[in-house]
Amino acid sequence: MDPSISEQVEQQEREGKALFAPVSELLGQVEQRMYQLLYSSDSLVEEVSTHHLRSGGKRVRPALVLLTGSLGGAVDQVREKLLNAAAAVELIHMATLVHDDIVDESGLRRGVPTVNARWDDQIGVLSGDYLFARAFTTLARTGDNRLVQIMADVVTEMSIGEIKQLSQAYGPQTEEDYLDRVFRKTACFISQSCLLGGVVSNLDEEAQEALSDYGYSIGVSYQLIDDILDFVGTEEQFGKPVGSDVQAGLYTLPLLYALDSSSRKEELQALISRRDITAADMNLIMELVRDSGGIEYSYTRAAEYGRRAKEALQGFEPSPARRALLGLVDFIQLRSF
Amino acid sequence: MDPSISEQVEQQEREGKALFAPVSELLGQVEQRMYQLLYSSDSLVEEVSTHHLRSGGKRVRPALVLLTGSLGGAVDQVREKLLNAAAAVELIHMATLVHDDIVDESGLRRGVPTVNARWDDQIGVLSGDYLFARAFTTLARTGDNRLVQIMADVVTEMSIGEIKQLSQAYGPQTEEDYLDRVFRKTACFISQSCLLGGVVSNLDEEAQEALSDYGYSIGVSYQLIDDILDFVGTEEQFGKPVGSDVQAGLYTLPLLYALDSSSRKEELQALISRRDITAADMNLIMELVRDSGGIEYSYTRAAEYGRRAKEALQGFEPSPARRALLGLVDFIQLRSF
Repeated sequence: MDPSISEQVEQQEREGKALFAPVSELLGQVEQRMYQLLYSSDSLVEEVSTHHLRSGGKRVRPALVLLTGSLGGAVDQVREKLLNAAAAVELIHMATLVHDDIVDESGLRRGVPTVNARWDDQIGVLSGDYLFARAFTTLARTGDNRLVQIMADVVTEMSIGEIKQLSQAYGPQTEEDYLDRVFRKTACFISQSCLLGGVVSNLDEEAQEALSDYGYSIGVSYQLIDDILDFVGTEEQFGKPVGSDVQAGLYTLPLLYALDSSSRKEELQALISRRDITAADMNLIMELVRDSGGIEYSYTRAAEYGRRAKEALQGFEPSPARRALLGLVDFIQLRSF
Repeated sequence: MDPSISEQVEQQEREGKALFAPVSELLGQVEQRMYQLLYSSDSLVEEVSTHHLRSGGKRVRPALVLLTGSLGGAVDQVREKLLNAAAAVELIHMATLVHDDIVDESGLRRGVPTVNARWDDQIGVLSGDYLFARAFTTLARTGDNRLVQIMADVVTEMSIGEIKQLSQAYGPQTEEDYLDRVFRKTACFISQSCLLGGVVSNLDEEAQEALSDYGYSIGVSYQLIDDILDFVGTEEQFGKPVGSDVQAGLYTLPLLYALDSSSRKEELQALISRRDITAADMNLIMELVRDSGGIEYSYTRAAEYGRRAKEALQGFEPSPARRALLGLVDFIQLRSF
């Protein structure tokens, strides 16, 4: 990666983390709690299960649990439950990452070898199961069944999403298929992390629904921007190959728009239908998508979801947590890496 | 497999199932409930997740939930909860089978291709996660948090057991390591399935503890007999290779006894230390283990656990369910396949 780019990425990460300032102390406690939950007398079990925990991460989901859980004001009365919910959510996230890396045969995550690469697929399968189990034990210990139900449903949706994705790859795909995939793979988990904060802090039904809608909207918007970035960057700029979704037979919104609206849609369809797309062909695909207006269309859609996210927060009193959640919407829209 | 052997296996399975007669109607309802829980509008998701359900099985764990849940008498008041607990337990069992088949690279289970063989490892990882998630949703819906906690702890122990096993293979192993493995991989799940029946039917603490001890004891006894059978059969008799644990570098009780007590223990140690053991060497290993008295020792230990299981049931009033649980102890001791 270009050093000036890498600096910009780091700056953007710092800005993102700065948004979580209202809950930074609690986030530190969540971090500690996760290590406590993964303590094991067996050194291999501990090493494997804390592998990705040790390599850091943005901790977006626990931050969302804590921020939405702070909207009602009285955090102290539900502090323990909130910390456990936030820790459990991140453990579930890590479990899905470990299993996804096996499914995608990934060797690196955030510059660190994946569990399947550092050990093997066997250890990956088992340590993912272990992380899931620790998370559900933690949720059950809060004594609030609804937390378990919400998170078990998230895992259900995510695994359905991944299975469907495997069967959709290289086949015909519509915008509806795409949005369904975005919901199951990304937005559902974000949405329910936000809901969790509302449930733990005993907000009323209407407020809980608003938080779930906020989370859904930023989740979709996040994924839309992510999918746009796959078409506007170059390999030199990002230090990773572009068009990885196209290569994997998965069509995201910019491409779906182009397949529908480009003046050269037949040519585009022929190009993406090949199993091994050359670098030159990939560049042409990128160009055709950009020329079709698919990028602008996707940005417009992302902005719509951003507005919807902000609207969802209208009913809440001004507070540092609310400001952070609103700031996050803009941050997601404006990020360029 | 020799046809007369295959007949004996089937007869033994029938006898085993006959023990579950007091709860056969409930077991039928559990079967139906599992299909309902795995219903999906996506045909691939449904096909994959019901793959092993459709190929049958002994349903030992749900039967134990139902039998222990019937000991208190008044099943009707807790019927729904009992059915959900029993269905969830079997879904968790199936999830672990699907993931274990990936870990062990198995291609067949009960004569049917495994999920990883019929589809691939990716689908296996995801469908296991899906089965876990459905099970935990079902447990959470009972409204009883303790059920979630008990089963999440079971999954924790099982994944720790599997990870430890991978690191112990081919290394030095003690009887303590072996019993720890038996606990985590088999006995814990059986024990907690029995506990679940007691919790759902609101038995008192003492009765719950007795059921958990009963389950632990039959679990260990079952595994000991299983490990003995690996040394007393021949490939012609069972239609599957003998000594699979030894080949995988895992030493079970008969072998551990022989390594300690055989007059030819150095020779035995040398034979098992090889990574690829020939058929002739395997036969010699089997012979040395049998000559050492390791089989008798293991039977004695299994019988001790059998007695302990029966003792655990002493405090319960006579009933068809109690008779079935007692009969199961003898069935486990006497089975020869």
